Amino acid sequence: MRILLATFSVTFFFASIVLSKPCFADGKKVAPKKKEFAIVIHGGTLGSRVDQERRKRKEAVLKKALELGTKMLDEGKSSLFTVEVVIRFLEDSPDFNAGRGAVFNSAGGHELDASIMDGRTRAAGAVGGVSTVKNPISLARLVMTKTRHVLLVTDGAEKFADGFSKLQGISRVPNKYFSTDHQRANWKAAQAREKEGERGKPKRDDGPKGTVGCVCLDRNGNIAAGTSTGGLTNKKYGRIGDSPIISAGTYADNRTCGVSCTGTGEDFIRHAVSYDISARMRLLKQPLKKAVHTVLHDPEQLVRGGVIAISRTGEISMQFNTPGMSRAAGNSTGYREVKVGK
Amino acid sequence: MRILLATFSVTFFFASIVLSKPCFADGKKVAPKKKEFAIVIHGGTLGSRVDQERRKRKEAVLKKALELGTKMLDEGKSSLFTVEVVIRFLEDSPDFNAGRGAVFNSAGGHELDASIMDGRTRAAGAVGGVSTVKNPISLARLVMTKTRHVLLVTDGAEKFADGFSKLQGISRVPNKYFSTDHQRANWKAAQAREKEGERGKPKRDDGPKGTVGCVCLDRNGNIAAGTSTGGLTNKKYGRIGDSPIISAGTYADNRTCGVSCTGTGEDFIRHAVSYDISARMRLLKQPLKKAVHTVLHDPEQLVRGGVIAISRTGEISMQFNTPGMSRAAGNSTGYREVKVGK
Repeated sequence: MRILLATFSVTFFFASIVLSKPCFADGKKVAPKKKEFAIVIHGGTLGSRVDQERRKRKEAVLKKALELGTKMLDEGKSSLFTVEVVIRFLEDSPDFNAGRGAVFNSAGGHELDASIMDGRTRAAGAVGGVSTVKNPISLARLVMTKTRHVLLVTDGAEKFADGFSKLQGISRVPNKYFSTDHQRANWKAAQAREKEGERGKPKRDDGPKGTVGCVCLDRNGNIAAGTSTGGLTNKKYGRIGDSPIISAGTYADNRTCGVSCTGTGEDFIRHAVSYDISARMRLLKQPLKKAVHTVLHDPEQLVRGGVIAISRTGEISMQFNTPGMSRAAGNSTGYREVKVGK
Repeated sequence: MRILLATFSVTFFFASIVLSKPCFADGKKVAPKKKEFAIVIHGGTLGSRVDQERRKRKEAVLKKALELGTKMLDEGKSSLFTVEVVIRFLEDSPDFNAGRGAVFNSAGGHELDASIMDGRTRAAGAVGGVSTVKNPISLARLVMTKTRHVLLVTDGAEKFADGFSKLQGISRVPNKYFSTDHQRANWKAAQAREKEGERGKPKRDDGPKGTVGCVCLDRNGNIAAGTSTGGLTNKKYGRIGDSPIISAGTYADNRTCGVSCTGTGEDFIRHAVSYDISARMRLLKQPLKKAVHTVLHDPEQLVRGGVIAISRTGEISMQFNTPGMSRAAGNSTGYREVKVGK
């Protein structure tokens, strides 16, 4: 039923693309097959223990997301369009901490963050703390294409969303649409741990465990990257993590690479992780994998999490310093990989 | 009267530092005079036409801010504490677009953004879209020191502020406290231009013209940087600019430099300007001035605005590609400079 709904949702989105003017331009970007393409997807880092049934579900969704993305890129769709559609698909899946399935905040609701960046122009859009937008990644894209701004937050972002319709990719939902029993249980556990912490016991890590991201290189040599998340379980005070911060959670530059990160967001902000990987390639001419490895293992800066990236030449990197990461990758040579774990 | 009020405000803040525990630690950081110090301050970029009376007022305030900052650093106060106190002083001045004197948003109110970063630990704090906190820079500092987060926004940030008192540097004011006749006139003019724009005439630049920032190197070799702003005149939809974005408007790293930026915020976000300057110094060993110049004049990326920065060795840079910038600088050799214009 869930997959049926997800399929329906994606089908509807495709239909909406054809019908709506703003997205139509991209829908038409069907270039002749001339160059290679590549795609990499993440579904967040993993702790040391992963429920086997949940792992299988994540794998199945990532496999579908990969099929969807590779098909689009193979047909010559733009990297930007593909990133948006793949992340919409993952937002609609309840098995990841983005869109439906997002973590609960301290008030028992959901506040979602997302960002997207076009490596061709380095244009970018992002939203923080939205609560009724079914697919925050599409709102982020509208911030990029329809405003002179990069980041809109909370009530203002909701108001901005009011100007768009389902046909433009913006469906509105009640906040409880994002709720799942799994995340409610995580929230209750986090609240209990917080109470324990107040009694002097150390808190355990409530870090994000299912942020989603996607990076694509299309047949025209254009790179795009996007990230979407519900943030930290039990988060307070309008906290914004790295996912909607360009240079922290997301970066894309045709001259270097595209990057999407997941992990302890604040570390990624402080060390501008996604931008730093791009800067290492541009300034030091470091190969992608070395740049990603250096940033994730710099002894002078603790950055806990994972990174997916694609270089301008199509090299794919999926690295993490956590016990595991959910990830998938593919390219025009036929290579496909889906892994949830180490 | 204005200066009297400002002086009273600063005196009160000093008194509050002595009385409050959280800031007291820094108040005590009076190290023996052993190394050189440096400070640089900006009060935003300037258009081609500047009212002479307003220019003189800005100069007078910047001179006082510089005196305040150099005195503190000379006495051995920490760079972080000095940055906070100098920016509070500028926020309290109605001649800059930060705190009192902030621009009006499209709804006729004020939404303030600020960030601060400690180059010693690369810890950082920021707030976006706050509306009743008299000194957003102090709230940004409390985000850094009292939470595990970096960025809190809008209602959440206000709620976080509820946990602190005047003695901790957090005074609350009605939103209209930030209003000035000068900015109201700018807002009315921007609204009129927007209407003209709707009738097909091009809009003129409503960019920020009075964001404030400060970077210090203290006698212990620690760098700190901070930025505070009211954002763009007539801004909509909870727009967040570069000022509260670590790596865009603000960055500090003892290994390289401290940076605060002002200008068209979205450009500074897309190109991670303040982080890029630090990255050029760390990765390419570029001298500070060359790094700043390169970023402001890269033909591949349009970044319109100004940058102030101090390197770990005390080199000061104040550069801009706009008609002018309000700025001030000083160091332990006795050098002092205040300029509002080219």
